[in-house]
Amino acid sequence: MEKQKVRINSERLTETIEHFANFGRTENNGVTRLALSEEDRLAREYFKTCCEALKMEVKTDDMGNMYALLPGLEERPPVVIGSHLDSVKCGGRFDGVLGVITGLEIVRTLVDNNITPKIPIMLVNFTNEEGARFEPSMMSSGVLSGKFDSEKMLNKKDADGKVFKEELAKIGFNGSEANRLKEAYAFLELHIEQGPVLQHEELKIGVVDCVVGMVCYEIKIVGDSNHAGTTPMHLRKDALFTTNNFIQDIRNELSSLPDDLVFTMGRLDVSPNVHTVIPNEVIFTIEARHKEAEVMAIVEEKIKKVQETVNSEGCTVSIEKLWDRSTVHFDNEMVQLLESVTKEQRLPYKKMASGAGHDAQFIASMIPTAMLFVPSINGKSHSEDEFTPYNDCAAGVNVMLEAVLELVK
Amino acid sequence: MEKQKVRINSERLTETIEHFANFGRTENNGVTRLALSEEDRLAREYFKTCCEALKMEVKTDDMGNMYALLPGLEERPPVVIGSHLDSVKCGGRFDGVLGVITGLEIVRTLVDNNITPKIPIMLVNFTNEEGARFEPSMMSSGVLSGKFDSEKMLNKKDADGKVFKEELAKIGFNGSEANRLKEAYAFLELHIEQGPVLQHEELKIGVVDCVVGMVCYEIKIVGDSNHAGTTPMHLRKDALFTTNNFIQDIRNELSSLPDDLVFTMGRLDVSPNVHTVIPNEVIFTIEARHKEAEVMAIVEEKIKKVQETVNSEGCTVSIEKLWDRSTVHFDNEMVQLLESVTKEQRLPYKKMASGAGHDAQFIASMIPTAMLFVPSINGKSHSEDEFTPYNDCAAGVNVMLEAVLELVK
Repeated sequence: MEKQKVRINSERLTETIEHFANFGRTENNGVTRLALSEEDRLAREYFKTCCEALKMEVKTDDMGNMYALLPGLEERPPVVIGSHLDSVKCGGRFDGVLGVITGLEIVRTLVDNNITPKIPIMLVNFTNEEGARFEPSMMSSGVLSGKFDSEKMLNKKDADGKVFKEELAKIGFNGSEANRLKEAYAFLELHIEQGPVLQHEELKIGVVDCVVGMVCYEIKIVGDSNHAGTTPMHLRKDALFTTNNFIQDIRNELSSLPDDLVFTMGRLDVSPNVHTVIPNEVIFTIEARHKEAEVMAIVEEKIKKVQETVNSEGCTVSIEKLWDRSTVHFDNEMVQLLESVTKEQRLPYKKMASGAGHDAQFIASMIPTAMLFVPSINGKSHSEDEFTPYNDCAAGVNVMLEAVLELVK
Repeated sequence: MEKQKVRINSERLTETIEHFANFGRTENNGVTRLALSEEDRLAREYFKTCCEALKMEVKTDDMGNMYALLPGLEERPPVVIGSHLDSVKCGGRFDGVLGVITGLEIVRTLVDNNITPKIPIMLVNFTNEEGARFEPSMMSSGVLSGKFDSEKMLNKKDADGKVFKEELAKIGFNGSEANRLKEAYAFLELHIEQGPVLQHEELKIGVVDCVVGMVCYEIKIVGDSNHAGTTPMHLRKDALFTTNNFIQDIRNELSSLPDDLVFTMGRLDVSPNVHTVIPNEVIFTIEARHKEAEVMAIVEEKIKKVQETVNSEGCTVSIEKLWDRSTVHFDNEMVQLLESVTKEQRLPYKKMASGAGHDAQFIASMIPTAMLFVPSINGKSHSEDEFTPYNDCAAGVNVMLEAVLELVK
């Protein structure tokens, strides 16, 4: 193998990205390709056709995960490359699908160059990563890694009451449990960053060494709903005022923590939400993410502290932890491999944590795993504005190609 | 006339309150009697039957306002007593209807005592005071006083697209424009306070000398919607954080104003309102009420000041005045009359402003007008918990009876 000289076909990569974007392309050049929808079926069929054209065998498991195998010279557990083809509603053309196309372009490049890998290469499309139609997100990698129960997942319903397993059968991608991914030599996922850091720091590659842990609390403030015109200020229990105090306090408290901590009050609902009525209830979420468990523990302490110390102005303040998850560290060797290839290719990069969840974080519990990020312009994702320059996509796929060649040689 | 001795029949008053409450009574002993609904029709029919039993002639105008006339010894413009029979969804048994029943009980008392007034007495039920089904509120008193255009109002639609005038015809209360209330000797409205002040100060009567002016602004904060996990804090434009700063600043600013100023952020909507996404837009209302125009002017200045000085954290802050209205001062003589009768009856009272809007504020531009409040337990109104002790209702109606006797003698 002449690993230094082999490069992907950038034009073909761009065309493939745009071809997949046709399956659910929106007016504003985004993509709506919900899991198990007609658009998803079309994208899957196209992916299958492309793989079969490369003489790969395509199998499907009981969750609808698709596996395309390029045999190696030796019969060994494969190097797996992949991500997901589904999107959120009005999402972008890169999130997920780019990681699947990465695998396709790598195999196409090997075939172009008459390279037969020693170790088999497997491409994978994980079903319903987004969780946009059927909750939870990362559903099928979760089943593979034992985090989720397949029976429960197969019976999940969408907002219209349609059942996952029936919808899966309807699009013809209900396969056998026996086909599930079990062991592999490595799993590599290329994904857009979905954040602004690479662009902001003028970098081309993020070598991802972990997916950060997170915690989500729901805060409920209960006051008293009265007429906005007839209730003097000193006789009010205004749940929004107390909410305001809480948010102010928690921002102050968290500002002393490391500046790579992120926290968000993304959902906030006011009741009864009428301009002439004093709010009697506000429910909002505080979601925080950081890679260090100690920092996350302090965040939780501070939320509890604010619950006790906030100026409640007569309202009651209750908190509930909705869920949390620990930081997932990727495989050291895989991270080092991606980093060394990136360095060799003289691409400006940084090692970074992923703030978003990915299939890779579940697969990491089974298989040596790492991820690569390419820049998201303005950090936009889950949006029709999502964009990664094609050159940046190509640079990322070339790093992946080289890393895969290194692994399969 | 022996005005000192005539008193209403408190038992009958209570029975009448509960009888009307049957028209739309809810599980929790509240009332849902939306304007022009079947429940409204039943209440109207019952009111008509009661009036006709007292030999009053009942007419209806083009807005569905109902007028029941008890002739006087002299043909003169009448003393008008009334309020509204409609309620909000899951409202109470007292709001509005008590003011109509007040008139009914007064006429019943006169008839019981064989008193024929010198001046005619007219009872009125104003259509759609609440605006809960068809906006705006105080719709029909607004038409009478020329504030609203009747054609526009007759063509208003409810949430189901049903047209006001068609619904009015359907319940059979579409009368003639010629029947509209035009001139009168006085208009008196008894209403529950809808606030906690009387109860809090252990008073039985509020003599209402004005309806406070108010202003409502809508504040729009626009930031940038990004992934809650992947966007570092310093690269965010979080519209909710800026909203929090704004509310904090405006509370500080307004706290230096007179303490009978009330202000409320009752409606607040966060977009996209997903726990994993940084809010890119928050729209909320600030509604403030005070009787003095100078205070209201300062409130508006302060809202504009905060728009300019708030720590916007990169978001844009725009403000729009949705509407305002000036303080409506009631007729001095009428207010004095109600006050002197209350004093005579040795009821603990205060002169107060109404923080809520009432039909009386529109009628005041045509007819010498005043209002009387009775206590609302815990200030509850527009709620199934709305309650005014029956004794307190009776005390209020006795004050009104005496005042009416004074006027019609």
